[in-house]
Amino acid sequence: MSDPSWTPEAEGDATLEDNWLFRLRRERFRSRASGKVHDYYVLRLADAVNVVAITADRRLVLVRQFRAGSGRDSLETPGGLLNTGEDPLAAGARELLEETGYAGSPPRWLGKVWSNPSLLSSRITTILIEDARPVASTAFDDHEELTIEQVPEAAIPSMIEDGRIDHALVVQGLLAWMAWRDGRLRFDRGEESSATIG
Amino acid sequence: MSDPSWTPEAEGDATLEDNWLFRLRRERFRSRASGKVHDYYVLRLADAVNVVAITADRRLVLVRQFRAGSGRDSLETPGGLLNTGEDPLAAGARELLEETGYAGSPPRWLGKVWSNPSLLSSRITTILIEDARPVASTAFDDHEELTIEQVPEAAIPSMIEDGRIDHALVVQGLLAWMAWRDGRLRFDRGEESSATIG
Repeated sequence: MSDPSWTPEAEGDATLEDNWLFRLRRERFRSRASGKVHDYYVLRLADAVNVVAITADRRLVLVRQFRAGSGRDSLETPGGLLNTGEDPLAAGARELLEETGYAGSPPRWLGKVWSNPSLLSSRITTILIEDARPVASTAFDDHEELTIEQVPEAAIPSMIEDGRIDHALVVQGLLAWMAWRDGRLRFDRGEESSATIG
Repeated sequence: MSDPSWTPEAEGDATLEDNWLFRLRRERFRSRASGKVHDYYVLRLADAVNVVAITADRRLVLVRQFRAGSGRDSLETPGGLLNTGEDPLAAGARELLEETGYAGSPPRWLGKVWSNPSLLSSRITTILIEDARPVASTAFDDHEELTIEQVPEAAIPSMIEDGRIDHALVVQGLLAWMAWRDGRLRFDRGEESSATIG
């Protein structure tokens, strides 16, 4: 990987907000090419995991919950933020269990991307857990209020088309899973990748 | 669409940061089900558009630019923020021209999703512009420094697999385009959808 085209400046940074969820920073960088200086906004928050969980009879386990950014309830794959140092595969199985009470096969890695690197410092890993089945009661975080919905695998494309599923990171994970399932994307390096995430 | 499960509270909101790019708000909502109150963080910023631009000989027109959230340069589809009241299709053609100097066929709508509704108020539309060709010189925004790269259509899957393309919203747009191209997703309602966006 080549060096970034902009480099951090020693001065000019500021923390604008710091709370339990994120730290908002203004960070100054200088262009190697032009010498120009620009203050970027970066919201520093934990990495996340997205869980495509599917039952033995090929139904996806989804959760519906309120999202303040849209002001609406959103139908999504289970998931959440990683604890410090937590492996995304382990975190995904934990989040699935906490949010839905489901568990299944050992997680399979389906890629890791930057959530929105123009603004956010976080990455999101998608994992697949097959043979998902209810094994426990749910253990929501304090303000989480979720409802669980099962959707037949074959219904997912039309739900993306008509916007019943419309969270970009969820759609990204579902499209990656479908492409992998149909042999159009390969995610072979999952184990080594997850081992280096730390 | 059903009512949201949480409703805004009259008091408790605060603006934590307000700048040229976004407004960071703390907004208080109350659960209809439990009566609990929770303060959500919402970053209010403009909607965006993502342009899958492809030449007559089936090469994608991509841009590489620095992203402060990752601290790295990122290979992406062209795109950017909508001006107030701007149609996403028009905005996409404008951004393609400004960032790359390319223009092409009338834009085709390939879906609109919430960028990250747990935190952001913005939506992102993906559009397709075929027969893209250079027609003008570029017109970057003040701090934009982009390089343009053409990539054969057939190389895109492996670039997603190995992380050479790893911006979630870009990957989402490219996977949606590939699924549409291969007949696995239909986006029939593009014109009416774009007409109602305002």
